[in-house]
Amino acid sequence: DFLQALQEVKPAFGASADTLERYRLNGMLECGERHRHLKATCMTLVEQVRKSSKTPLLSCLLEGPSGSGKTALAATVGLESEFPFVKVLSAETMVGLSEVSKSNMISKVFDDAVKSPLSIVVLDDIERLLEYVAIGPRFSNLVLQTLLVLIKRTPPEGRKLLVVGTTSRSEVLESMDLAQAFNVNLNVPALKQDEIKQVMAGQNIFAPHDLDRAVAALDQEVPIKRLLMVLEMAAQGEEGEDADLIRQGAKKVDLNRFYDCLQQVFV
Amino acid sequence: DFLQALQEVKPAFGASADTLERYRLNGMLECGERHRHLKATCMTLVEQVRKSSKTPLLSCLLEGPSGSGKTALAATVGLESEFPFVKVLSAETMVGLSEVSKSNMISKVFDDAVKSPLSIVVLDDIERLLEYVAIGPRFSNLVLQTLLVLIKRTPPEGRKLLVVGTTSRSEVLESMDLAQAFNVNLNVPALKQDEIKQVMAGQNIFAPHDLDRAVAALDQEVPIKRLLMVLEMAAQGEEGEDADLIRQGAKKVDLNRFYDCLQQVFV
Amino acid sequence: DFLQALQEVKPAFGASADTLERYRLNGMLECGERHRHLKATCMTLVEQVRKSSKTPLLSCLLEGPSGSGKTALAATVGLESEFPFVKVLSAETMVGLSEVSKSNMISKVFDDAVKSPLSIVVLDDIERLLEYVAIGPRFSNLVLQTLLVLIKRTPPEGRKLLVVGTTSRSEVLESMDLAQAFNVNLNVPALKQDEIKQVMAGQNIFAPHDLDRAVAALDQEVPIKRLLMVLEMAAQGEEGEDADLIRQGAKKVDLNRFYDCLQQVFV
Amino acid sequence: DFLQALQEVKPAFGASADTLERYRLNGMLECGERHRHLKATCMTLVEQVRKSSKTPLLSCLLEGPSGSGKTALAATVGLESEFPFVKVLSAETMVGLSEVSKSNMISKVFDDAVKSPLSIVVLDDIERLLEYVAIGPRFSNLVLQTLLVLIKRTPPEGRKLLVVGTTSRSEVLESMDLAQAFNVNLNVPALKQDEIKQVMAGQNIFAPHDLDRAVAALDQEVPIKRLLMVLEMAAQGEEGEDADLIRQGAKKVDLNRFYDCLQQVFV
Amino acid sequence: DFLQALQEVKPAFGASADTLERYRLNGMLECGERHRHLKATCMTLVEQVRKSSKTPLLSCLLEGPSGSGKTALAATVGLESEFPFVKVLSAETMVGLSEVSKSNMISKVFDDAVKSPLSIVVLDDIERLLEYVAIGPRFSNLVLQTLLVLIKRTPPEGRKLLVVGTTSRSEVLESMDLAQAFNVNLNVPALKQDEIKQVMAGQNIFAPHDLDRAVAALDQEVPIKRLLMVLEMAAQGEEGEDADLIRQGAKKVDLNRFYDCLQQVFV
Amino acid sequence: DFLQALQEVKPAFGASADTLERYRLNGMLECGERHRHLKATCMTLVEQVRKSSKTPLLSCLLEGPSGSGKTALAATVGLESEFPFVKVLSAETMVGLSEVSKSNMISKVFDDAVKSPLSIVVLDDIERLLEYVAIGPRFSNLVLQTLLVLIKRTPPEGRKLLVVGTTSRSEVLESMDLAQAFNVNLNVPALKQDEIKQVMAGQNIFAPHDLDRAVAALDQEVPIKRLLMVLEMAAQGEEGEDADLIRQGAKKVDLNRFYDCLQQVFV
Ligand SMILES: Nc1ncnc2c1ncn2[C@@H]1O[C@H](COP(=O)(O)OP(=O)(O)OP(=O)(O)O)[C@@H](O)[C@H]1O
Ligand SMILES: Nc1ncnc2c1ncn2[C@@H]1O[C@H](COP(=O)(O)OP(=O)(O)OP(=O)(O)O)[C@@H](O)[C@H]1O
Ligand SMILES: Nc1ncnc2c1ncn2[C@@H]1O[C@H](COP(=O)(O)OP(=O)(O)OP(=O)(O)O)[C@@H](O)[C@H]1O
Ligand SMILES: Nc1ncnc2c1ncn2[C@@H]1O[C@H](COP(=O)(O)OP(=O)(O)OP(=O)(O)O)[C@@H](O)[C@H]1O
Ligand SMILES: Nc1ncnc2c1ncn2[C@@H]1O[C@H](COP(=O)(O)OP(=O)(O)OP(=O)(O)O)[C@@H](O)[C@H]1O
Ligand SMILES: Nc1ncnc2c1ncn2[C@@H]1O[C@H](COP(=O)(O)OP(=O)(O)OP(=O)(O)O)[C@@H](O)[C@H]1O
Ligand SMILES: [Mg+2]
Ligand SMILES: [Mg+2]
Ligand SMILES: [Mg+2]
Ligand SMILES: [Mg+2]
Ligand SMILES: [Mg+2]
Ligand SMILES: [Mg+2]
Repeated sequence: DFLQALQEVKPAFGASADTLERYRLNGMLECGERHRHLKATCMTLVEQVRKSSKTPLLSCLLEGPSGSGKTALAATVGLESEFPFVKVLSAETMVGLSEVSKSNMISKVFDDAVKSPLSIVVLDDIERLLEYVAIGPRFSNLVLQTLLVLIKRTPPEGRKLLVVGTTSRSEVLESMDLAQAFNVNLNVPALKQDEIKQVMAGQNIFAPHDLDRAVAALDQEVPIKRLLMVLEMAAQGEEGEDADLIRQGAKKVDLNRFYDCLQQVFV
Repeated sequence: DFLQALQEVKPAFGASADTLERYRLNGMLECGERHRHLKATCMTLVEQVRKSSKTPLLSCLLEGPSGSGKTALAATVGLESEFPFVKVLSAETMVGLSEVSKSNMISKVFDDAVKSPLSIVVLDDIERLLEYVAIGPRFSNLVLQTLLVLIKRTPPEGRKLLVVGTTSRSEVLESMDLAQAFNVNLNVPALKQDEIKQVMAGQNIFAPHDLDRAVAALDQEVPIKRLLMVLEMAAQGEEGEDADLIRQGAKKVDLNRFYDCLQQVFV
Repeated sequence: DFLQALQEVKPAFGASADTLERYRLNGMLECGERHRHLKATCMTLVEQVRKSSKTPLLSCLLEGPSGSGKTALAATVGLESEFPFVKVLSAETMVGLSEVSKSNMISKVFDDAVKSPLSIVVLDDIERLLEYVAIGPRFSNLVLQTLLVLIKRTPPEGRKLLVVGTTSRSEVLESMDLAQAFNVNLNVPALKQDEIKQVMAGQNIFAPHDLDRAVAALDQEVPIKRLLMVLEMAAQGEEGEDADLIRQGAKKVDLNRFYDCLQQVFV
Repeated sequence: DFLQALQEVKPAFGASADTLERYRLNGMLECGERHRHLKATCMTLVEQVRKSSKTPLLSCLLEGPSGSGKTALAATVGLESEFPFVKVLSAETMVGLSEVSKSNMISKVFDDAVKSPLSIVVLDDIERLLEYVAIGPRFSNLVLQTLLVLIKRTPPEGRKLLVVGTTSRSEVLESMDLAQAFNVNLNVPALKQDEIKQVMAGQNIFAPHDLDRAVAALDQEVPIKRLLMVLEMAAQGEEGEDADLIRQGAKKVDLNRFYDCLQQVFV
Repeated sequence: DFLQALQEVKPAFGASADTLERYRLNGMLECGERHRHLKATCMTLVEQVRKSSKTPLLSCLLEGPSGSGKTALAATVGLESEFPFVKVLSAETMVGLSEVSKSNMISKVFDDAVKSPLSIVVLDDIERLLEYVAIGPRFSNLVLQTLLVLIKRTPPEGRKLLVVGTTSRSEVLESMDLAQAFNVNLNVPALKQDEIKQVMAGQNIFAPHDLDRAVAALDQEVPIKRLLMVLEMAAQGEEGEDADLIRQGAKKVDLNRFYDCLQQVFV
Repeated sequence: DFLQALQEVKPAFGASADTLERYRLNGMLECGERHRHLKATCMTLVEQVRKSSKTPLLSCLLEGPSGSGKTALAATVGLESEFPFVKVLSAETMVGLSEVSKSNMISKVFDDAVKSPLSIVVLDDIERLLEYVAIGPRFSNLVLQTLLVLIKRTPPEGRKLLVVGTTSRSEVLESMDLAQAFNVNLNVPALKQDEIKQVMAGQNIFAPHDLDRAVAALDQEVPIKRLLMVLEMAAQGEEGEDADLIRQGAKKVDLNRFYDCLQQVFV
């Protein structure tokens, strides 16, 4: 289908920058110190792969709650690495495929990757690649075994590979010995109150005197993706009538509308 | 078969209005404030999809007891949206199909949907699409994984999609991480006493002095579909002889007949 | 095979009266008020389907212990409805078929049914159609999902359908959400002492002074089918020598022989 | 293979007398009142099927411990019935067949049976036909469902059928609702001390003064088949040297040898 | 492969003596009274099959801990019986075969066996033939059912068969009703201290004053195969330098080396 | 793929020295007495296979925590044995293969091995060959049964075979009776403090006064592979800038950087 088509443009050389941009449609906003440090750690791994001769293979797992920004971070690492081969393996491009086809597709990407001197393979949302569901539990052991081997397989002489995985079910990956197969495990957290405030202030859609009350209404940690969604809903108004004015700064979000949206999204 | 035939009339453009009407054969009766607010919330989501540039994809799960009116509400949202593409995915059109065929059919509809600028896909009775049964439990993990991905897949540039799901087993969908994959979760409730009375008064088939006793006989919350069924049974009389007179208002429902019917239907 | 052959005579129009008679080989004996009321309730549903325009689809589940007369009752309803299409779906005609073939055969019958203006489909012994066994438990989820959908699928404009199911495992069907999918649930009970006496008196094979003692020997509720079986065994005598005389009324059943038979049949 | 070949001689008319004899290689010895009554009860069922017009189908399950003589009894009933069609369905003739082939073979025999006016079908060692094993447990649900239906399927007008089943796992068959599907359940017991003595005396291989001590050494109930095996072993002597003399009555079994054999066989 | 090739030399007549010798590569050493009696019991069964007309089929299960000498004993029985047909069924000749192929191969051997007047079939390491693993547990039910039937199937007139099984998991075979299907069950034990001493003395590789201390170091029962392995390791010396001298009697085993070996082998 | 290609160079004669070197990319560092003794024990087994005529088959399982050096040790044994046939069976060369193909590939290697007079087969990471995952647990029983047989199958006359297995899940292999099928079990441990210090001192990347504090920061046992990884990361510096200087000895590792790396790797 169309997504696959987009990604297949330069198969031998991984994803184009355009494709990677699709994984961070709302950009990379400033979210505070924790997120900054996370990105820096990832970029150090990129440098180690580029420069060290003893570590031709490094792997890093980004884990955290749904919507915390793992995929966007992985895409950003891929973009900023400027490695000649960057490829995202995502269940979105494998809808309806059999276990065998998925395993082959994954295996093919790793084979392609080590034909390039410097490569990044992103395994996005690993529990979806594994077709995991908690009832049972069920998952594709074929895909799992494929990943367990490929993540640890040393590239041939002169080739270097960074594997970046993302997951919101790290406890599941641990029980499969898959989290441990990564060299490094990093937590991508949901936002705390001060981080939330930083993002909301940046959006500039609340009246100054409403901002603190809006933040206070969020009494739990909130993943960045969900926060952006609820801000967008609130900015629409009841019948979509406010959107333009608010985006132009001519109007501010109504607090009650905001509280309503919170209830629908944080059930 | 015939149902499928009806739905296939305009495959590239989703269901015709006629097909959508089939999902609310008893019309949309006035059921009180709660149902009114539910519909309004749904229509706001329609507007957000239509107007917001930051939310090209929105998804909403309607959950509630069997017969509470979820499918009728979803069909109404489709009809009133006036979006060019509205399609209902229902197990009725997939009887006897294999997992693979179901997954492909679902995938095809989502692919078609994003060829239209504004689209609604209704996933009706998701537990049936999943072939779920509590013993085991068993279900189609292939269909589940397909849904988990498609519900979250961003449409290409310039296309917008609203996904509306219905289910009477939301706790099951939660344990599959499927309920959480929807942006918004809304409860479609069974009717309380005052709502029941409103509907029964509207039908005008009880003698005025019988109405309160009839309502009182319903000491639990009743889904709208089951309420309409028991009223129709009662209006038949013992041997189908009263139906015409009652419909014409020339006769009223016998209370004992009504009590009998209640026992058969609310076992 | 032969049974199937019998039933295939008029496939497009359901079972002939002859075929339906096969399901009540021992006739319909007078068994007291409870059985009379049961049949009346079924016939009211037949009338509602015939006359009401709001209920083009009605479904009724007959449940009760093995041999209580469920199949005979369903066949009787079919015969007396005089609907143009009456079809019994029974595992007897599906021996050795695959899940897929069974599902297709069932689906075909429902498709055929709604080509006739007034139709009855009998789903006989649903646990057998489902290939249910308590160990595991195991059953055909394909057949189950087919039934769950077909029982609730509204016929097209102008067609009316009554679905009658029978089962001796209603608790199993409930745990599959299948019992609840029927609009009406009716219990077909085993016979109590007075009902047993009525049937035994009607057979006229005991000496007058033996009848009460024979009835008293049955200290539990007895399904009609098993009662008729034990009476027939007793009437045979030890070596099949009494059968003719007793049938002609020239001899009466020996009580000790009757007690012996009870022990073999009610283990 | 060879056994199958033997049985296929007259497939349309069931087993020949020769084949039935193979199931009771050690003849039918006099084992006391309980075994006599068992056989009489079976023969009454044969007569009922032959004569009664109301019971065209009767079914009887023989259950008891391994080696208690169930198969030999069923074969005897078949032989003495002199019915034109007598067929034994045994796992011996189905080694290595698939579930589907077994189900078809069983189904075919029942279809053949009802082409004859009077028929007996023996389902020998039903747990083996079902491929049952307690670990799991596992079994062929296809074969089970086939049996559940065929055992209850009324033959066409004018045809009569007696089904005789044997099993040493009646509790398993009960948990599958299969034991209950038979009209009559009969227990074929292992032998008690007096019955054992009767059989041992009949063999005439012990010295008169040894007989009681030999019987006393058997402090549990013993199935007839195992009893005959241990007697044969004992009669061999340590190195097979005594067999001929003992059979000719020229020598008697050594009691110590007999005790040794008991230990090997009754572990 | 090569093993199979060896065994296929005279398929219609079972294994050649050469093949049987392969199953006792270290010969049959004198291990004391218990082992002697075991073999004698087996040979009596051989004689009973040869001579008795009432027991055309006998079966014997040899069970005991891994390496206790079961296979070597079964091969010895086959060799010394001098029966025209002796065949070992072993998983070694079935590596990678499907369940169906294994079942067919087994069935074929039993069919071949009863074409000969006197035959022995050895079922070696039955848990391996069954592909048994305790996790699950899992095993081939097809192979199990095949064995359950074949072990009890009477050969045709004039043919005699002895079935010898071996297993180190008799409790598993019991839970499958397979151990009970054998007429005789015999335990092949690991060696006790005095038996160990007898074997070690026979090897003549310890200095006289070391023998008792070496035996004392073995504080548990030891299977013959493991005992011979540890003696061989000890006789090698640290770097394989002692082997020749010790075998020629020119040097004795170093006790510390022996203790080291014990630790590696008896973890 | 490429790895397979490398290994297939001399299939009939096992792996070339080059291929074996790939399994110890960071060489064999001096890790203290325990590791030295381990290797010596392995080499004694090599000698026993080479020289003893009574043990044509020996098998040894190396088990220990992930990264403790099992594969590198096995490869070293293969290299130093100078046996004509040395072959590593690793899941890396079987990615995506079916159970059947894996079983066949393994079987083929064992068949090839015994065509050479002296052979070593390394079964690397047996849990991966078995496709083992703890959830379920699931694994390939086909591969397991293949290994259970091949590990114990005596080579033909005049051929000698040493099987070396590696695993980090020895408790799993025990529950499958697979660990016990090896003649010898050896533990390859993670490094203790003094061993860690020996390795770190050898690397010469810490300032003398920092060494003890760096060692002290490692308060648990550390597998050699993980230790080398964290040292390499630390030597990179924050942005890969220090690597060259440190390798040349011109700069030392910053302790804080080292502490940071520890946290990422020892989560
Ligand atoms: N600093 C940031 N880090 C990550 N994402 C950000 C940041 N600022 C804004 N975003 C936006 O937040 C969204 C994060 O969504 P993303 O899909 O990456 O989350 P996720 O953790 O992968 O979610 P899921 O668990 O559903 O896979 C993206 O739309 C991205 O553009
Ligand atoms: N206000 C209303 N909202 C919803 N349905 C209504 C309303 N008024 C009348 N109805 C009628 O009630 C019925 C509701 O049935 P519907 O199939 O939508 O329920 P459901 O919740 O989807 O049931 P199920 O759980 O069985 O799928 C329809 O026939 C519809 O025409
Ligand atoms: N009043 C009656 N109602 C039902 N059956 C009757 C009645 N009088 C006599 N019978 C006879 O009793 C028998 C009832 O058997 P039927 O097969 O209908 O029972 P069932 O409940 O369907 O049994 P099962 O649970 O085995 O399917 C039939 O032979 C029927 O002819
Ligand atoms: N009175 C008797 N009744 C039954 N069998 C007898 C009798 N006298 C001798 N026998 C012999 O005893 C043996 C009974 O074995 P049979 O195979 O019938 O037992 P079974 O209960 O079917 O065993 P299994 O549980 O193994 O199937 C036969 O060889 C039969 O010839
Ligand atoms: N008296 C004896 N009885 C049996 N085996 C002996 C005896 N003396 C020496 N041996 C040798 O001991 C070894 C016994 O091994 P064998 O394979 O028969 O044991 P096993 O019990 O079958 O083992 P496993 O449980 O692994 O199948 C053989 O090599 C055999 O030559
Ligand atoms: N003395 C040593 N013994 C073993 N490996 C060593 C030694 N010194 C250095 N090494 C290096 O340590 C690494 C050990 O990794 P290896 O893959 O052998 O571990 P492993 O136990 O097989 O890991 P896994 O459990 O992941 O399979 C290799 O890169 C090897 O070159
Ligand atoms: Mg993501
Ligand atoms: Mg609905
Ligand atoms: Mg019935
Ligand atoms: Mg039997
Ligand atoms: Mg053995
Ligand atoms: Mg390794």
